[in-house]
Amino acid sequence: MSWKFDVSCAFNEQAAKYYLERLEGKSPLFVCTIATTETAKIPGISAAGKYPEFTDYTPPADAELLLLGRCKCIDGVPVTPEGIPTPALITLSALRLADIPVLVVCGGLKVAPNIPYMYLGGKPGRDIRGGHAVEEVEEVIARAELAGRHLAKTAGYLVIGESVPGGTTTALGVLLAMGFQAEGKVSSSMPMNPHALKVATVKAALAAAGHACGSLCADPVKAIACVGDPMMPAFAGLAIGAASEVPVLMAGGTQMSAVLAIIKALRPEIMQNLAIATTRWVVNDHHSDIVGLVRQVHDIPILAADLDFSFSAYEGLRAYEQGVVKEGVGAGGATVAAMVKTRGKITKERLLAEIEKNYRALVEQR
Amino acid sequence: MSWKFDVSCAFNEQAAKYYLERLEGKSPLFVCTIATTETAKIPGISAAGKYPEFTDYTPPADAELLLLGRCKCIDGVPVTPEGIPTPALITLSALRLADIPVLVVCGGLKVAPNIPYMYLGGKPGRDIRGGHAVEEVEEVIARAELAGRHLAKTAGYLVIGESVPGGTTTALGVLLAMGFQAEGKVSSSMPMNPHALKVATVKAALAAAGHACGSLCADPVKAIACVGDPMMPAFAGLAIGAASEVPVLMAGGTQMSAVLAIIKALRPEIMQNLAIATTRWVVNDHHSDIVGLVRQVHDIPILAADLDFSFSAYEGLRAYEQGVVKEGVGAGGATVAAMVKTRGKITKERLLAEIEKNYRALVEQR
Repeated sequence: MSWKFDVSCAFNEQAAKYYLERLEGKSPLFVCTIATTETAKIPGISAAGKYPEFTDYTPPADAELLLLGRCKCIDGVPVTPEGIPTPALITLSALRLADIPVLVVCGGLKVAPNIPYMYLGGKPGRDIRGGHAVEEVEEVIARAELAGRHLAKTAGYLVIGESVPGGTTTALGVLLAMGFQAEGKVSSSMPMNPHALKVATVKAALAAAGHACGSLCADPVKAIACVGDPMMPAFAGLAIGAASEVPVLMAGGTQMSAVLAIIKALRPEIMQNLAIATTRWVVNDHHSDIVGLVRQVHDIPILAADLDFSFSAYEGLRAYEQGVVKEGVGAGGATVAAMVKTRGKITKERLLAEIEKNYRALVEQR
Repeated sequence: MSWKFDVSCAFNEQAAKYYLERLEGKSPLFVCTIATTETAKIPGISAAGKYPEFTDYTPPADAELLLLGRCKCIDGVPVTPEGIPTPALITLSALRLADIPVLVVCGGLKVAPNIPYMYLGGKPGRDIRGGHAVEEVEEVIARAELAGRHLAKTAGYLVIGESVPGGTTTALGVLLAMGFQAEGKVSSSMPMNPHALKVATVKAALAAAGHACGSLCADPVKAIACVGDPMMPAFAGLAIGAASEVPVLMAGGTQMSAVLAIIKALRPEIMQNLAIATTRWVVNDHHSDIVGLVRQVHDIPILAADLDFSFSAYEGLRAYEQGVVKEGVGAGGATVAAMVKTRGKITKERLLAEIEKNYRALVEQR
């Protein structure tokens, strides 16, 4: 049920209303943080690639799609094992319709994209089951914060999205390490959410790192280093740097609760400049609980783009209504930003038409 | 003799006046393109480092200074053999006073800076005497153009500067390869300009590349690849991408004529969105001829910041009046942008006071 433009509110309605008003008509900058982790290659964890090695290519391919309108490091576009296309298609369509500029930021990648991107010194993430998942966490946070401070001067607000296959498992890792009740609550890009596998993976990771659930509640840097992924320090640092000056839309699903926990532990005073923007598919998902997660961390607003692909002409898009993909590459936040920037001139119908046009060009007619 | 704010005009006064009016009060983004070339290590070519290997550290150190307010990859700040500090001190002071955001873009570096920077796929440059100076020229131009198009949406205009030791020699290389009368006209960071050495170096480079003066007049990509440096494709691409949407201030000395020649050969239709902004020291230099160079390429405006260090309390700054350093790291353009953004509230006196404050903190009191 939409609430303003084609945006609804999932949590904190009063604050959300005020937050949206602050953004209205302003020109945002969309920042896409991309990273890879070996954790994504654990069988059954991620749908982001048909084969485990594909997960190395998904984030750079998503980033290429956003900037070039096509991928270079792979043929076609990233798809799930069933052939459902990447949510970067939604992001691309929203950003182009609303003429919103994009900056790609590398948190740590195995395969570099063939586009301009910002580098922060990060390396690709290891399998969290080793207990030493991410290197250079503090340095990447510091550099990202510096970048965020400068980027905040170039835009009315920042929309920060992410692409990191396996990211809900590492989010669960950080949430449990920091003491939140997160079991069974993180989302999945697959219709059947492999909660038990994710929990077992994180428990193994914490054991390997020599930590218990909650033992890192005051040490988000160590939580990332042990059981997180390289998207997190880049995203958190950018948000910290930018939110000290302008509003920030954290564009993502349940992973955003982990990033929010990191940010709050590092810089609690910037909470009023943060909101989460995601999709209706995440908010309505019965196999995860974004509100239940965010509520535990801090009561920032959760906005949801009322995307509805039920009546799309394309099966690959209608599949989103069956709970496939749901979110990613900041699709929900980019949609909200496009609608708010144009004060509702971009409706969900107009956006779907654009998505279908790009779908045709990129997926169907290859 | 100042002309508006503390800015004077060295070429094309009518167009310059109109150009400045277009910039007034707008918020710019300062982009610093950094690169290294082995050419800088030819004895006698460059003053950017005390020892040849220091030239590998000058651009990353300059970039760190701009973003962090101090260098990390070296102790102190880059200095000439006589101890005169880098013009990045001027740039830093101007940008901070006027609250102008900075983005560092890597054209190709031997030593990476410890800050966030944009990567375009470029590699450090080789000694031009080998005739194969720069790799991936087309790809870097394409990526930089894409970045420039997006960055143009984040600012009223772009100010693009450079730091590349040895850059006037590679500029001479490209200018001669493209058929311009450039002998004896490029500037130097040293008071005595080693013109004969630069010309001999370029002639050797062209011979090694199998080209004659002027034979690459229509092929700027090959001119860079043979006898240029990796700053050039990054700078030219950024300017091309941005200037199709917003004004661009090319912040630099005589090297800008080479970049302008490259841009004009690739995209002649954007000339009206380009101007050069440099320092009084370059414009008044008797050992080089920026107007004589730019006039041959295209009659875009040349603005000059009326920086005057004659009465500075510090010998290291007064030395600038003896013809040392003169320009670099976009010092002149950053100064013009700071003055124009604040509609003259930042005067040359106020800027000098800020430069002296930063000089004290960084150079004197180490």
